[in-house]
Amino acid sequence: MRDQKINKEPKITLLGAGPGDPELLTLKGVKALQTADVVLYDALICEALLAYAPANAIKVYVGKRSGEHSFSQDAINKLMIDYALNYGHVVRLKGGDPFVFGRGYEELDYAASYNIPVNVIPGISSSIGVPGLQQIPVTHRGLSESFWVITGMTSSGEISEDIYQAANSKATVIILMGLKKLPEIVEIFKTSGKHNLPAAVVQNGSSEDEKLVVGTVDSIYDIVKREKIEAPALLIFGEVVSLHPSFKSLIKQYASIA
Amino acid sequence: MRDQKINKEPKITLLGAGPGDPELLTLKGVKALQTADVVLYDALICEALLAYAPANAIKVYVGKRSGEHSFSQDAINKLMIDYALNYGHVVRLKGGDPFVFGRGYEELDYAASYNIPVNVIPGISSSIGVPGLQQIPVTHRGLSESFWVITGMTSSGEISEDIYQAANSKATVIILMGLKKLPEIVEIFKTSGKHNLPAAVVQNGSSEDEKLVVGTVDSIYDIVKREKIEAPALLIFGEVVSLHPSFKSLIKQYASIA
Repeated sequence: MRDQKINKEPKITLLGAGPGDPELLTLKGVKALQTADVVLYDALICEALLAYAPANAIKVYVGKRSGEHSFSQDAINKLMIDYALNYGHVVRLKGGDPFVFGRGYEELDYAASYNIPVNVIPGISSSIGVPGLQQIPVTHRGLSESFWVITGMTSSGEISEDIYQAANSKATVIILMGLKKLPEIVEIFKTSGKHNLPAAVVQNGSSEDEKLVVGTVDSIYDIVKREKIEAPALLIFGEVVSLHPSFKSLIKQYASIA
Repeated sequence: MRDQKINKEPKITLLGAGPGDPELLTLKGVKALQTADVVLYDALICEALLAYAPANAIKVYVGKRSGEHSFSQDAINKLMIDYALNYGHVVRLKGGDPFVFGRGYEELDYAASYNIPVNVIPGISSSIGVPGLQQIPVTHRGLSESFWVITGMTSSGEISEDIYQAANSKATVIILMGLKKLPEIVEIFKTSGKHNLPAAVVQNGSSEDEKLVVGTVDSIYDIVKREKIEAPALLIFGEVVSLHPSFKSLIKQYASIA
């Protein structure tokens, strides 16, 4: 048994795992895991990824999920430093991309205050990858020259001011962690006169139990309730949603009821 | 020598190669290339990726670069169909993510009109990955609740209307293919009173010859000229740029000149 405490330079890799499907990890991500002494991993991380780490690497679940015992961001930061100082290479494995609402920079900043070098490996952000896997392009000539990615869950618990502006823009609007706020979000789009703007909600994007519903600003909340869509889910508002094959049939169906 | 024309079902994989570093390809991307009969690849694709395809796979460069012989989008679409019908599995290897200004949906749509099945494999978009590799987070608590990704090169050749709105938002604004329009883009931010907003330009993001400059809306164009930054380059406007280590020193330097 090797003594992991000897001759190890502390270092930290902030690694984006991608949206869920373990095959959406990058080659660079695999290499980082293969040299990990410790892996600190979040909720929503596919356990298959942990198998890339050496068998004797320490693997610690630090996920924050409502209703479970959870680690505060402070606790995660401190754990990360302790492990790096004592064991060497800590891979901080985070869902999606580390810097897309992942609080990755707070971890990087904390590590920097201890002079521990941090390497960042981007991951496929669900904001782009999940629509893409559903063959909904976030941009498309004639429909969208931009996309705007917003958190539905600000640190204050309020709806982000940015959503009000986004509802008035021509951007494809992608909202992460916004399912609980869907009724309020839909009202914002209605206030901007976007009643008929196509909308989609994707639950568990890129995973085996992925579920998609499409509708319009006016109909999407009822559809989400009827289909019992649950978090984690991603919201997409924009004309590009109309490119999805299931869009036209659904709209016809609703038009005939109305 | 096998006859590639026999017993091959036509199919197409739209594959995102990521921003440049070949190790930022996903595992799913490697698998797709390993089963390719034909690879149609763009400019900016690292040739190392082609080595994942079988030795006898056909590899065709279809990049569009100013000043070189170039394929039109129509020609690429037709080539893709011809190869799929005659050789089987075509991997359409595109820089970044296929649906982020990559015209990927046009290719998907064209293939669908021939009833050729299309699989989409997302890639790391440079819009998120390139800032991230520079340790500039596109979102960060207290600085940015959203990021807005816009093309600097619309199909009409005009500046996207979305940039005017973005300059008035609190989003981190990321502009791809915008270097040529930098003077106009900077003026738009100035008109919105954002003279001191931190700005960065990254040339050849994630590649060995990557080059970063940081400044403010007021100073970034002069810095870009002085440092001879060239396309391909990505523009970042937002408070998050102030987190980059080189930001504070540069600002001090400019303040002392002013």
